[in-house]
Amino acid sequence: MPRTRVHNFSISLDGFATGEPQSLEAPFGHAGQRLHRWMMATRFWDEAGSAGVDYSFALQHSEGIGAEIMGANKFGPPGWPDDPDWRGWWGENPPFHTPVFVLTHHPRPDLVMEGGNTFHFLTATPAEALAAAREAAGGLDVRIGGGPSVVRDFLTAGLIDHLHVVVVPIVLGRGVRLWDGLEGIEAGYDVEAVSSPSGVTHLTFTRRAD
Amino acid sequence: MPRTRVHNFSISLDGFATGEPQSLEAPFGHAGQRLHRWMMATRFWDEAGSAGVDYSFALQHSEGIGAEIMGANKFGPPGWPDDPDWRGWWGENPPFHTPVFVLTHHPRPDLVMEGGNTFHFLTATPAEALAAAREAAGGLDVRIGGGPSVVRDFLTAGLIDHLHVVVVPIVLGRGVRLWDGLEGIEAGYDVEAVSSPSGVTHLTFTRRAD
Repeated sequence: MPRTRVHNFSISLDGFATGEPQSLEAPFGHAGQRLHRWMMATRFWDEAGSAGVDYSFALQHSEGIGAEIMGANKFGPPGWPDDPDWRGWWGENPPFHTPVFVLTHHPRPDLVMEGGNTFHFLTATPAEALAAAREAAGGLDVRIGGGPSVVRDFLTAGLIDHLHVVVVPIVLGRGVRLWDGLEGIEAGYDVEAVSSPSGVTHLTFTRRAD
Repeated sequence: MPRTRVHNFSISLDGFATGEPQSLEAPFGHAGQRLHRWMMATRFWDEAGSAGVDYSFALQHSEGIGAEIMGANKFGPPGWPDDPDWRGWWGENPPFHTPVFVLTHHPRPDLVMEGGNTFHFLTATPAEALAAAREAAGGLDVRIGGGPSVVRDFLTAGLIDHLHVVVVPIVLGRGVRLWDGLEGIEAGYDVEAVSSPSGVTHLTFTRRAD
């Protein structure tokens, strides 16, 4: 049975997955790259990087994934739907290499890019988007790519089987929180916590069998 | 030089150090005992408990401590200042065994109890309270005992040298948060994260030498 997974989803100690304000120059606002430095220090990002626990977790990102669903705020900076030429942040060969479903209230035609990246734009509930992504994933798993509002919506809808959250030891103070409205969410999951010498802590939520 | 320390301060994944509402029957509100089960499962609380990493951290609580400062909400439930007979939650021999300074807008005479526990009630700024506690501590360290508002006030005032926070893998959703208003607090500290097989993660903030 294919699973729905979240990977490498980094938050501050106070639960913010992005800072503010988000812009073309600063996709994560005042957080800058601080939430993702743990990942950039591994071979996942840099050939000369580390290959320990942080790398091991990071690697799961693409393993067995057949499609991604992301929110509008991940695809571009505020206002991107008004720019017909916006093609995402990632250049001509984005790092997904699968169909990608972008949740937006401003759908546009499919965007076919190099490396197996095809972006589909749709207005849909989490369950509808997941059905479309599963269809496209060819029996593989679907990754929910963020941002925090989208991950939260899928958690609230009970659609996440595997959630990997990385707690970074910084206090951001402002931005968009992951956990809001999710009181008691742990009841449906087994939770593992593993700290890394890098200072981050990897939390793995695995959905309990019913 | 004596230090000012916080120990065994437990928060949920979303940063709440207590649930709501707080009452005589439920000092931590809807959180119940969930934030402190990790500690109650060790020899710190129960002779038959575990003696690993959780116990090792818990033990630091009293080591080298000469006085505690606590907030009014730790000393009693809402309304305790109106009850002249309220003597705390802990029976006639509370677990502090040092002078304890209770920050309150309703001071009352000193309360002398068994086991070296003397409670002093004062209206004071964090710096003033710390000066009084240091004087009473006889050269030993001062513990800031909580609750979250008091820990936050002392952090904001730059008065904490050692902060031990225990992140418990539950999402409380509501209550009193620790991290509010503390953006960037990590800059003044070295931070260590260690996960325990029990599922909690111990964060140790050690103030950097200037």
